[in-house]
Amino acid sequence: MRLLQFYIDDIIKTALNEDINYIDSTTDLLISPKDRSEAYFIAKASGVVAGLDIALRVFELLDPDVEIIRHTEDGNEVFKGDIMAEFKGKTAALLKGERTALNILQHMSGIASYTALCVEKVQGTNASICDTRKTLPGLRALQKYAVVMGGGKNHRYNLTDAAMLKDNHIDAYGGITNAVKALRERAGHMLKIEVETRNFDELNEALAVGADVIMLDNMSCEDMKKAVEITAGRAKLEASGNVTLDNIGEVAKTGVDIISLGALTHSVTAFDISMKWR
Amino acid sequence: MRLLQFYIDDIIKTALNEDINYIDSTTDLLISPKDRSEAYFIAKASGVVAGLDIALRVFELLDPDVEIIRHTEDGNEVFKGDIMAEFKGKTAALLKGERTALNILQHMSGIASYTALCVEKVQGTNASICDTRKTLPGLRALQKYAVVMGGGKNHRYNLTDAAMLKDNHIDAYGGITNAVKALRERAGHMLKIEVETRNFDELNEALAVGADVIMLDNMSCEDMKKAVEITAGRAKLEASGNVTLDNIGEVAKTGVDIISLGALTHSVTAFDISMKWR
Amino acid sequence: MRLLQFYIDDIIKTALNEDINYIDSTTDLLISPKDRSEAYFIAKASGVVAGLDIALRVFELLDPDVEIIRHTEDGNEVFKGDIMAEFKGKTAALLKGERTALNILQHMSGIASYTALCVEKVQGTNASICDTRKTLPGLRALQKYAVVMGGGKNHRYNLTDAAMLKDNHIDAYGGITNAVKALRERAGHMLKIEVETRNFDELNEALAVGADVIMLDNMSCEDMKKAVEITAGRAKLEASGNVTLDNIGEVAKTGVDIISLGALTHSVTAFDISMKWR
Amino acid sequence: MRLLQFYIDDIIKTALNEDINYIDSTTDLLISPKDRSEAYFIAKASGVVAGLDIALRVFELLDPDVEIIRHTEDGNEVFKGDIMAEFKGKTAALLKGERTALNILQHMSGIASYTALCVEKVQGTNASICDTRKTLPGLRALQKYAVVMGGGKNHRYNLTDAAMLKDNHIDAYGGITNAVKALRERAGHMLKIEVETRNFDELNEALAVGADVIMLDNMSCEDMKKAVEITAGRAKLEASGNVTLDNIGEVAKTGVDIISLGALTHSVTAFDISMKWR
Amino acid sequence: MRLLQFYIDDIIKTALNEDINYIDSTTDLLISPKDRSEAYFIAKASGVVAGLDIALRVFELLDPDVEIIRHTEDGNEVFKGDIMAEFKGKTAALLKGERTALNILQHMSGIASYTALCVEKVQGTNASICDTRKTLPGLRALQKYAVVMGGGKNHRYNLTDAAMLKDNHIDAYGGITNAVKALRERAGHMLKIEVETRNFDELNEALAVGADVIMLDNMSCEDMKKAVEITAGRAKLEASGNVTLDNIGEVAKTGVDIISLGALTHSVTAFDISMKWR
Amino acid sequence: MRLLQFYIDDIIKTALNEDINYIDSTTDLLISPKDRSEAYFIAKASGVVAGLDIALRVFELLDPDVEIIRHTEDGNEVFKGDIMAEFKGKTAALLKGERTALNILQHMSGIASYTALCVEKVQGTNASICDTRKTLPGLRALQKYAVVMGGGKNHRYNLTDAAMLKDNHIDAYGGITNAVKALRERAGHMLKIEVETRNFDELNEALAVGADVIMLDNMSCEDMKKAVEITAGRAKLEASGNVTLDNIGEVAKTGVDIISLGALTHSVTAFDISMKWR
Repeated sequence: MRLLQFYIDDIIKTALNEDINYIDSTTDLLISPKDRSEAYFIAKASGVVAGLDIALRVFELLDPDVEIIRHTEDGNEVFKGDIMAEFKGKTAALLKGERTALNILQHMSGIASYTALCVEKVQGTNASICDTRKTLPGLRALQKYAVVMGGGKNHRYNLTDAAMLKDNHIDAYGGITNAVKALRERAGHMLKIEVETRNFDELNEALAVGADVIMLDNMSCEDMKKAVEITAGRAKLEASGNVTLDNIGEVAKTGVDIISLGALTHSVTAFDISMKWR
Repeated sequence: MRLLQFYIDDIIKTALNEDINYIDSTTDLLISPKDRSEAYFIAKASGVVAGLDIALRVFELLDPDVEIIRHTEDGNEVFKGDIMAEFKGKTAALLKGERTALNILQHMSGIASYTALCVEKVQGTNASICDTRKTLPGLRALQKYAVVMGGGKNHRYNLTDAAMLKDNHIDAYGGITNAVKALRERAGHMLKIEVETRNFDELNEALAVGADVIMLDNMSCEDMKKAVEITAGRAKLEASGNVTLDNIGEVAKTGVDIISLGALTHSVTAFDISMKWR
Repeated sequence: MRLLQFYIDDIIKTALNEDINYIDSTTDLLISPKDRSEAYFIAKASGVVAGLDIALRVFELLDPDVEIIRHTEDGNEVFKGDIMAEFKGKTAALLKGERTALNILQHMSGIASYTALCVEKVQGTNASICDTRKTLPGLRALQKYAVVMGGGKNHRYNLTDAAMLKDNHIDAYGGITNAVKALRERAGHMLKIEVETRNFDELNEALAVGADVIMLDNMSCEDMKKAVEITAGRAKLEASGNVTLDNIGEVAKTGVDIISLGALTHSVTAFDISMKWR
Repeated sequence: MRLLQFYIDDIIKTALNEDINYIDSTTDLLISPKDRSEAYFIAKASGVVAGLDIALRVFELLDPDVEIIRHTEDGNEVFKGDIMAEFKGKTAALLKGERTALNILQHMSGIASYTALCVEKVQGTNASICDTRKTLPGLRALQKYAVVMGGGKNHRYNLTDAAMLKDNHIDAYGGITNAVKALRERAGHMLKIEVETRNFDELNEALAVGADVIMLDNMSCEDMKKAVEITAGRAKLEASGNVTLDNIGEVAKTGVDIISLGALTHSVTAFDISMKWR
Repeated sequence: MRLLQFYIDDIIKTALNEDINYIDSTTDLLISPKDRSEAYFIAKASGVVAGLDIALRVFELLDPDVEIIRHTEDGNEVFKGDIMAEFKGKTAALLKGERTALNILQHMSGIASYTALCVEKVQGTNASICDTRKTLPGLRALQKYAVVMGGGKNHRYNLTDAAMLKDNHIDAYGGITNAVKALRERAGHMLKIEVETRNFDELNEALAVGADVIMLDNMSCEDMKKAVEITAGRAKLEASGNVTLDNIGEVAKTGVDIISLGALTHSVTAFDISMKWR
Repeated sequence: MRLLQFYIDDIIKTALNEDINYIDSTTDLLISPKDRSEAYFIAKASGVVAGLDIALRVFELLDPDVEIIRHTEDGNEVFKGDIMAEFKGKTAALLKGERTALNILQHMSGIASYTALCVEKVQGTNASICDTRKTLPGLRALQKYAVVMGGGKNHRYNLTDAAMLKDNHIDAYGGITNAVKALRERAGHMLKIEVETRNFDELNEALAVGADVIMLDNMSCEDMKKAVEITAGRAKLEASGNVTLDNIGEVAKTGVDIISLGALTHSVTAFDISMKWR
């Protein structure tokens, strides 16, 4: 799975432009453009890698002749003290790119690592871990990619590629049945339809009208268990709301198919990685 | 303090383009373009607001006729249950903009709120709370602005606008003294120079050569206290590394001038805000 | 259903920049910037309107004070001689925008009109008319929107938002069954899966593994009829390949659910519309 | 004749971004990034090639190591069954680029092929075939380039690079004579001036004032013949309006210098080309 | 004559982004966003205005409610001490925009004023003053517009919109005659052809083959006089090379039609204008 | 010292797009795409080089296989007749890039050469030569870089990276003391503060409050001398206003630290360089 190279390059250029809008006033004035150095990324904690190629690409864009040795790759686990990649190139390029590279790598690996923790907690159940649209401006692709690297799945990428009926949509048609029917009438045949429900009446209505996916919004585990029984495989069930590392195992055991967590992308803790110089 | 309107608008358009790359397959197919609704932002926790105007701007860009009543503004404290702003406009515009608006508002208010917690902890000391260049691609201005809204200060905005000498720079000149002198010789007169130090020898050398700011890198509180004494006001001292909410008060009491925290921007917990419909 | 205003504005600016890269050498040198004129769009044939607001937006961008009276709107039928909209504004703005406005309006209405012809031909059957990804660079949203205005449906918007398994994908897994299973294992739960088939064996395999949609690729009408019987509602069937206005009615009568035509967007005949001056 | 490489690359990136706004949900989840394949473009009809390098560039941008063998080039005739180019590269890159490459190649070759038909019909006369500004947003350069590949000529590229006086311009100065004189007074010396005329009075006035080019707007062939006699080489004559493949030969025989057709670019039929896999 | 508003706005945004990449560290930290002030532009020398609307647009973009009173307009002469425009708006907006507005206004008025000096020197002769392609990256439209405001004419806008045959082109065809014929054969009918000549042989050859315009490259005034006689109105003659304010009058008296000066745009002296506060 | 490569490439693409918005109507129609030529840049005057790599990059972007031999580099002096660089590549690429390359090289070398003249005049004094924010839209980085190549220093790059208190800022706080204190209270610790002063009272106030830099605005040399004495090294002094090549030596002798000149960038005379063909 790969993001388009020019999308990645654009993100990196945006970041470098933010960080160097004229010259690097320290490096450009002190370091000879010919000096070369060696450095490496080292994990300061244990987790899952995401964004390594993107981080290394920062140096390639600043110094096309940089030499890189990868010791791991996206989706792999790393442990505290692991060297993730080594690289040799112009000292000035490595200095200028260091922060930008780490900012991306730490953020993406932070997402992958937290996702992996969630995935581990639901091991042995039917549930998959899924992201949301709660992402940061301009970073959705990076963030959703990192979720997959951590073993999670992607919910819809945007408002275009799948439908989710919320209260407003449903109220405008006097109920789930009419709203889903109207949408099915108008939408293309490749569009999946999910319906938000908060109780068994709504669940039953959504099931009856044949929703592809049904979100159980902020339901208790007990209710979700019952919802799973009622549904009996007629639709995919998505648990959403108030899921944390503490209760995610319990949620998974209810038998829901998907557990979605906004926190995977809206509240990311950077994964601790250092760039060391040789 | 205001960011340029067209910078903000560009961020919002980027986010909306990520979220709607063709149509909103639910709203555009179900909601009449003429329907109007009322909604509001409500705080689900206590903290400091940042990004409110930007979040509301999302709706203005989608519906130029949206009517807005602000109940607070950036930099203000809000408490759980506070209504932050009310707005009335096209239902379709509010639905399409909801997630983008919240994503921005929650992230920025998360930064401001955490910064405010740090600021509170150092109340009564000499220390100010400061951000770093550990920001997310394309979001540096939003993030640094949010730090200020939380009562923090901005470190340099980028590699251009101030100099920071690290090992590589110093080693290339055989020591702090020569490196600082070389830089002062070459740099413009508006550039402040900060030097990273890890022990008292380096500190003394940086002081002797007249560095404007000296970073105490990962020093113990004891050592920082001693550094403050040695420095005696001859330069600003910045504590950096391993600072958390737990020890920040203690760090501040050492007498350092600035405490910088990467976590302000690289590990943000979204501030909990809901958009409710009337 | 509305495209994002700034997406539209960007398309228009692209077109105007192509057409006026410095000044309009005729109008800017001959027409007083204060002169005002009235003009209107008139249909020179019968068909379905698409892009009227976008065409009129060209004039708004060139003269914010232009006054517009709409006589119809996107999705409506117009007949030869119908006035579609009247507008009054700066002569120079109307002259500069005329070609750009017409180019957009004629192309989009051409798509809508041809789509409407297809839709009419399948009236009374189960089949809906659907577009493809055979669109022109930068114009996919405009083209897909126009298809909907003509009464058609949209197939997937891009390679991201739904899956379509072709030979290469299937061969890599030794058959439809394994390929679909692998994809379902890895994809998010909101992704629909379509499988291309060319014979009844493939159709049966796709049905057995539970494909959401099955494409009947270049099948004869006879075979499609049989495919409909075999399928018996277990999946949506899409007829694709060699469909023309001449045989589309016959194809529809086979009972397929969807008929997709690349020609809707890759071989568009501009709808004849003139801009007349009063 | 070559378009700027970065203009072409921008068009391709625009198209790929439309088609893959996150990942290719089929290919990225099913095909190994290391798999390589061979494929080729084959003409399914006879016509003239345009856009071959651009189509192949799509694959180069997705896989810098793709190997390409060209069997023809832009401007050449191809016949049904001809292999146009072969290429070998990453299977995923070929799958992701296939539709974008074909969309461009089919559109441009469609233009070139239709232009060539027109050119053939006027063989042996004085007339050259010429395009107009009736192009699609963002695609003018591609389209005008394709016209040339088909043996046609380019009319002005935009409103900037040559002047064309229409009714509004002429009326503002009380007649052709004054309008042309005013323009010549104000315009730079490199600007050619064309005047639209609808009868012999206007033609004579335009000739008298020394217009470089005179458009005969929707005149009958008989009138055009007479116009050619009247003009006697004093200006270039351009036939415009209601020209089709059926009557273009007759129009050319009137002796006009240029025949311009909007249909070359506003009503393009895609040239039928397939991408086959080995 | 007007440049496209969004082209202008893009230039201004580019300039403002260069000048404010985060906040205005003085104004944003010291001036209340509600403070309003009055200021005006005053000429500190005599010359011709260009770019006034663009300069004022800077303030409009920063403060949509700014009130403006214009005292002159582009193309007008101003004298030392003349107030050019007054404006009232947010103090912060006026402070942030001051330098950007003046940079544009002074550069463009510098061009217009110098052009006007040249035009004055050739008064009473046949010659018009003309710019070249010797412009600054991204500023060609602004610069060429300013030349016109100063009373000059525009040479071709770019390499696309007119042809100029230089040595390389001519050598490739073994002489002017063949090169011009080849070009006329291939080019569209709206393209004017200019030929560079350095002696009477070349001039005669260019005249014989019917070049529209002939450049006399670095000829002495005596030779140019003779060239005018030889030409006898059969083509436009452009004097180019080594023309200064000192000799331009003499050059004009040779009877050439056009005198082109790179210095109009490549060596601009800013026109002295101040922004004063009330 | 290097500008970011993609910033440079963007400037070049902007310039090339201005100059070739479709094809080069002379070169593309006359020169075979396979023809190769040799050419070189030759100095027609004596001065300092800036922008050589950028100019040569123009050819690299148009012909990746161009071969280049550099005979000098940015920051070096060249003399009339010196060959600066030789290059061999596609004739068409060299022809298309010639003007764009020269426009950049001549402008930047013009800045560097004039700066070097100023630097030479102040040789032996304490004063350094410094630029301002009086730059051209989109070209600030190029211009400021050229100043450094000429031996000058850069003042602040933009309004963000250092503070300069002018009348409006000072008046809003009732004087220099309060304004500086307010700013220091609010600004980050890496921000230098400069204060504009016009007399000794203001100078003394600025010194007392500890301004980092003090601008002496339009003071006589006599007053500046006295200001230097008063200051006695407590702050950097910047002379600004009415400095020319004639009086700059005298200004420098007053003992000020910095002399800033807007003319370095707002009134640039292109350095005379030709591109000659072999």
